[in-house]
Amino acid sequence: MSATISTQHGDDAGVIDLARGDPGRDLLPAALVRDAADRATATLDPDLLQYGLEAGDAGVREAVSAFLEREGAGAVAPERLFLTAGASLALHLICSLFARPGDRILVADPSYHLALAQFRDHGLRVEGVASDADGLVPEALEAALRAGPAALLYLVPVFANPTGTTLPPARQAAVVALAARHGVRVVADEVYRLTGFAAPAGADATAGPPPRSLAAIDTEHVLALNSVSKILSPGLRLGWIEGPPADLRRIATSGVLRSGGGMNPFPAAVVRAAMERGTLADHVAHVRARLGERHGALAHALAAELPRAVHSPATGGYFLWVRVPGLDVDAPETLAALARHAVRVAPGTLFSPPRVEGTPRPGAEGAGHAGAEGAGHAREFMRLCFAHAGPAALREGVARLAAALDDVGS
Amino acid sequence: MSATISTQHGDDAGVIDLARGDPGRDLLPAALVRDAADRATATLDPDLLQYGLEAGDAGVREAVSAFLEREGAGAVAPERLFLTAGASLALHLICSLFARPGDRILVADPSYHLALAQFRDHGLRVEGVASDADGLVPEALEAALRAGPAALLYLVPVFANPTGTTLPPARQAAVVALAARHGVRVVADEVYRLTGFAAPAGADATAGPPPRSLAAIDTEHVLALNSVSKILSPGLRLGWIEGPPADLRRIATSGVLRSGGGMNPFPAAVVRAAMERGTLADHVAHVRARLGERHGALAHALAAELPRAVHSPATGGYFLWVRVPGLDVDAPETLAALARHAVRVAPGTLFSPPRVEGTPRPGAEGAGHAGAEGAGHAREFMRLCFAHAGPAALREGVARLAAALDDVGS
Repeated sequence: MSATISTQHGDDAGVIDLARGDPGRDLLPAALVRDAADRATATLDPDLLQYGLEAGDAGVREAVSAFLEREGAGAVAPERLFLTAGASLALHLICSLFARPGDRILVADPSYHLALAQFRDHGLRVEGVASDADGLVPEALEAALRAGPAALLYLVPVFANPTGTTLPPARQAAVVALAARHGVRVVADEVYRLTGFAAPAGADATAGPPPRSLAAIDTEHVLALNSVSKILSPGLRLGWIEGPPADLRRIATSGVLRSGGGMNPFPAAVVRAAMERGTLADHVAHVRARLGERHGALAHALAAELPRAVHSPATGGYFLWVRVPGLDVDAPETLAALARHAVRVAPGTLFSPPRVEGTPRPGAEGAGHAGAEGAGHAREFMRLCFAHAGPAALREGVARLAAALDDVGS
Repeated sequence: MSATISTQHGDDAGVIDLARGDPGRDLLPAALVRDAADRATATLDPDLLQYGLEAGDAGVREAVSAFLEREGAGAVAPERLFLTAGASLALHLICSLFARPGDRILVADPSYHLALAQFRDHGLRVEGVASDADGLVPEALEAALRAGPAALLYLVPVFANPTGTTLPPARQAAVVALAARHGVRVVADEVYRLTGFAAPAGADATAGPPPRSLAAIDTEHVLALNSVSKILSPGLRLGWIEGPPADLRRIATSGVLRSGGGMNPFPAAVVRAAMERGTLADHVAHVRARLGERHGALAHALAAELPRAVHSPATGGYFLWVRVPGLDVDAPETLAALARHAVRVAPGTLFSPPRVEGTPRPGAEGAGHAGAEGAGHAREFMRLCFAHAGPAALREGVARLAAALDDVGS
């Protein structure tokens, strides 16, 4: 799998990689970060170098709240924010503190594949809950919740990875109400929340305010994960959890936090400077415009070169979730043809957890890998990322994809 | 406990805090970090802002190896290094990937209390192994290993927290050989390894090369944890694991690493600049000299003001492990007297795991808290930190401590 979709390594020469989910080099503002680092270190304050509060510096949390408010995402009381070293690590901590191996975790089907990998590492019993074009289906969630206790519900409710879907407001409310009724913690992975763009996109069009956070709907049961990875820089490893103060206290009083203190004080000070100077807001507008432009380039290329491909247009996020009826992306001949044409995609099966069948299946522990039930349908899907490659590379990538699928006659 | 010994919060006005284990403000070189950040961002390389390799940038790992070699600590092949966001988080990852709740973990008695807190969070069965003035006792370790399987052995083998002890070379070899024979992974917390000073210390005396790492003795069974927290800045959250490439690969291929990429690329680039410019080496020499000076001030004050207190002189690290025969540090009247005299110490019982009794005790899971067996002896001990307060504050702190103990007649 990592050969197909590693996101942490350099580009292979000549290959157009539509699989990796990281921002392209041109979306990583080195000058902005340099300026912010200059500001953060200008005062030569030794306290910046100390362990720092477990939840993160209060001034930084206030800056995050003010930034969110200016972005139209709504202010958040600093006591409901906990700064982390990225959203992935936040998810890891939540799994280790709020669940135990063998516990059941419900996840949207399809789900971010590396979240599924985390759940396997923690020995959780992963069970998929059906989604449709509007995201997680409340009736399916209700059936899964009735089937037995679950420690967590994980979903990407906003500009989802891999589908691009955003839960409509009524469905947001229904999902959170169901989880609350059953006493299940909701982990809402909202790292794409500020990436909305206008669709169909003009070159510099931007969309309205970000979709509402699930944590704003229910302040007792939702831990919403966010970070600057998708809007500024993954390498700064600065994220935050928005959630109930009691849950944040449990994290702050864990051994690892009491020992290590704040999770990333130095990058936090850098991000704070970018927030307070307004340079981050400018950059977010730039990212949204570029994403809209690239989404348009990818969608147009698909319509022109691969008209049998089906997908819903995205209005934010990094991805299109594309179905080619009759295709088997995972078939060896398909993968060989893609390699021959020097283009990479993320096969849909990567994102498939097992399906809920009403009751937990014996032996389901650790079985949350793609390829189980539901994967038959997922084999026709692929996730294409429009954040890494620019418009020209996206067009060329789709041309190669179309040629590769022609080779295998699908 | 956190009221007594929180290390993550500011000083209370007027209180001399000999409990917290963090470096004093004057040991946090803000100008150095600013210069290093300038260098790191000078090239405006967007790759610095990308997710980055899971194990950390190869150039940074080479810089760590070269730095260790120049410090006399021995070069480490970059494939045996894994960069982390501090040693505490490294320990958390190791617990979550190489152990499961209910597994037995052997720890030196006494042990770093917040490592014990981490083991409790992971649901590990903590069992203490006796130490003497030279650290962990091999015969006690052998008995514990024979009593049943263990997932991990945790110890601070160099300038230990809380005792200041360094295992002599023969004991290092014996401990590692025993663990290897029983197939038990050794987690060697070596964050104080570069803090050695001459003892008795002149104002600017420094000691010889750092003690050998356990990971240099056995390259198959030891995961050695290190970081820049004790020699540069906790807030940079930059650490590293030295260990077998197979174990490092297991960490690199975990879900959380595959999702989040390198654990702290931006601070890593800053630390690399400080290593390559030599400013870190200069600062480490400064830290060692100051620690030696402060150790001397604390030891002299104890001899003068509290002559019945017993301790071994330290030759590195942050701590003196002080016994006052007949004292009960945890007694309410002792704690009240310390508070009245505005001085804080870390009670020895914090560092006490349960003692091994030959076989795992039923119900021992999660019982690794201070106050169990062995704590009776530990009640005469306290850990005093000489890294946070300067020489004058150390002298005043000891005077207050002596006055407080006079109040309670011990």
